[in-house]
Amino acid sequence: MRLTTFILGAAAGGGFPQWNCNCDVCRLAWAGDPRVKPRTQTSIAVTTAPNESSSPGDAPFVLINASPDLRQQIVATPALQPRGLRMSPIAAVVLTGGEVDQTAGLLTLRERGPFALYGTAGTLSTLAANSIFGVLAADVVPRKAVHPGSPFALPGGIEAELFLVPGKTPLYLEGDNPELEAETDANVGIELRANGARLVFIPGAARLTAAMATRLAEADVVLFDGTLFSDDEMIAAGAGVKTGRRMGHMPVGGPDGALAALAGLGRRRILIHINNTNPILIEGSPQRRTVEAAGFEVAEDGMRIDL
Amino acid sequence: MRLTTFILGAAAGGGFPQWNCNCDVCRLAWAGDPRVKPRTQTSIAVTTAPNESSSPGDAPFVLINASPDLRQQIVATPALQPRGLRMSPIAAVVLTGGEVDQTAGLLTLRERGPFALYGTAGTLSTLAANSIFGVLAADVVPRKAVHPGSPFALPGGIEAELFLVPGKTPLYLEGDNPELEAETDANVGIELRANGARLVFIPGAARLTAAMATRLAEADVVLFDGTLFSDDEMIAAGAGVKTGRRMGHMPVGGPDGALAALAGLGRRRILIHINNTNPILIEGSPQRRTVEAAGFEVAEDGMRIDL
Repeated sequence: MRLTTFILGAAAGGGFPQWNCNCDVCRLAWAGDPRVKPRTQTSIAVTTAPNESSSPGDAPFVLINASPDLRQQIVATPALQPRGLRMSPIAAVVLTGGEVDQTAGLLTLRERGPFALYGTAGTLSTLAANSIFGVLAADVVPRKAVHPGSPFALPGGIEAELFLVPGKTPLYLEGDNPELEAETDANVGIELRANGARLVFIPGAARLTAAMATRLAEADVVLFDGTLFSDDEMIAAGAGVKTGRRMGHMPVGGPDGALAALAGLGRRRILIHINNTNPILIEGSPQRRTVEAAGFEVAEDGMRIDL
Repeated sequence: MRLTTFILGAAAGGGFPQWNCNCDVCRLAWAGDPRVKPRTQTSIAVTTAPNESSSPGDAPFVLINASPDLRQQIVATPALQPRGLRMSPIAAVVLTGGEVDQTAGLLTLRERGPFALYGTAGTLSTLAANSIFGVLAADVVPRKAVHPGSPFALPGGIEAELFLVPGKTPLYLEGDNPELEAETDANVGIELRANGARLVFIPGAARLTAAMATRLAEADVVLFDGTLFSDDEMIAAGAGVKTGRRMGHMPVGGPDGALAALAGLGRRRILIHINNTNPILIEGSPQRRTVEAAGFEVAEDGMRIDL
């Protein structure tokens, strides 16, 4: 295998269903309707291991983002379970931002398990300002700042590169007038390369820049922001007062949505980071059919991508 | 019903099995051995609702501690699921300390769901020093400092009282020489009273004081620190370098353990906050039989206690 990716979680912040929500889509999930599959919050695990065997000596895993549901995700994924007395195959975590749904799972990785933690200087300074992340002791979890645009080596022979993606700072750091489409190191995407395979992961994007489009064109797989189908979806559902763009996410549908912007880019396009209000979560819905007709897939927990 | 308690999670920090652990007890859990039941991290939900119906108008729920597994716990507990479009029955959360396994679940309760958050001044100042908890906006989640020893009213007609319990500050705030049996507001227990019923919850105790013993004697149910069976259990398992006492937890067994100290106190005694190395997790083990012979129960996820 050249590069294997496990989708540990495919939902946006809050997960699907969301703890306090009974919107039309969540209601199906609470009722166990077979047209929808529950999803935990977005995180992926990548490896160059030849198979799912858990025998010692297998290649390590790298997590991209650590969702609040990480403990549940590890329990559901045999390949991520410990191999020795205290030996997890998780050798590194890379953060693409400092939001709760990207970082809270770091708190699950306490208990003195060694791994390397990568992120931009901005994201690591957000962690440093929150003492609770001190449960990851510096002597076992080194924090390594990486520059967007500079490739770096990850365990297992994976080459990675962070790159700027228009977005915003984490919600809990917003001021009164947050910049919504800033290209800063608060929000990045990641490209992963191994043995000639290329996967690009962009869980949050306010828009697609020309540089991003060039990068995606070369990718074998693109995992892209599928938060909302329509910009005003949460407002229409009575589930919130914010548009998608206010949250730093471009919509999936419409003339300036992801389906239009990514048309023809990459060999395989998969929407991820899907909000609980998004009707593409419902198999057979008009929006789901639109997505599929445009040649996009909808990520779900437990998906495995072998390149 | 006078006072109903749901055990949402019964494990200590890290849960059972723990992400990076293959000790003798965790190994049974990873293998699906029927003698052990997986457990999420300790949190309980209390209510005075007459039944489990989720129809609008039912009494609210109060959570005691918000474990990192809270999203999974809500999904597993129909009574805690939303009743209206955006209306959770969770009306309040009370913290007994600022450890990760007591607070990280607050991050799950974001998305502008209103509830009241109670804790000691010390615990609330720990939260305030970590900006990530700012996802709980002050206009929807008021934070209310309560004094140990002063009763206060919770939603649903529940009266509560925090009280000092010997313990220590959260791990991530430890200095070089943490005081291990301090009676400060960093670590408290809680007594809950409704309609004449009394439940006492003490998930962490370095020792039992005379004042605690007096309080427990009057209780219908005591939920008490069952972290480790033996003080050196983690060292013997090769799973760590700390004793239980170093972590602020008295052992279950032995001449100065919880079984001896609590003998005859309270009408029903249940051990909770059980570490993944603790052999009382194995049904039929000698330590489990010792606990049961002493008149104690072992908490598990999904237990319901009706008083």
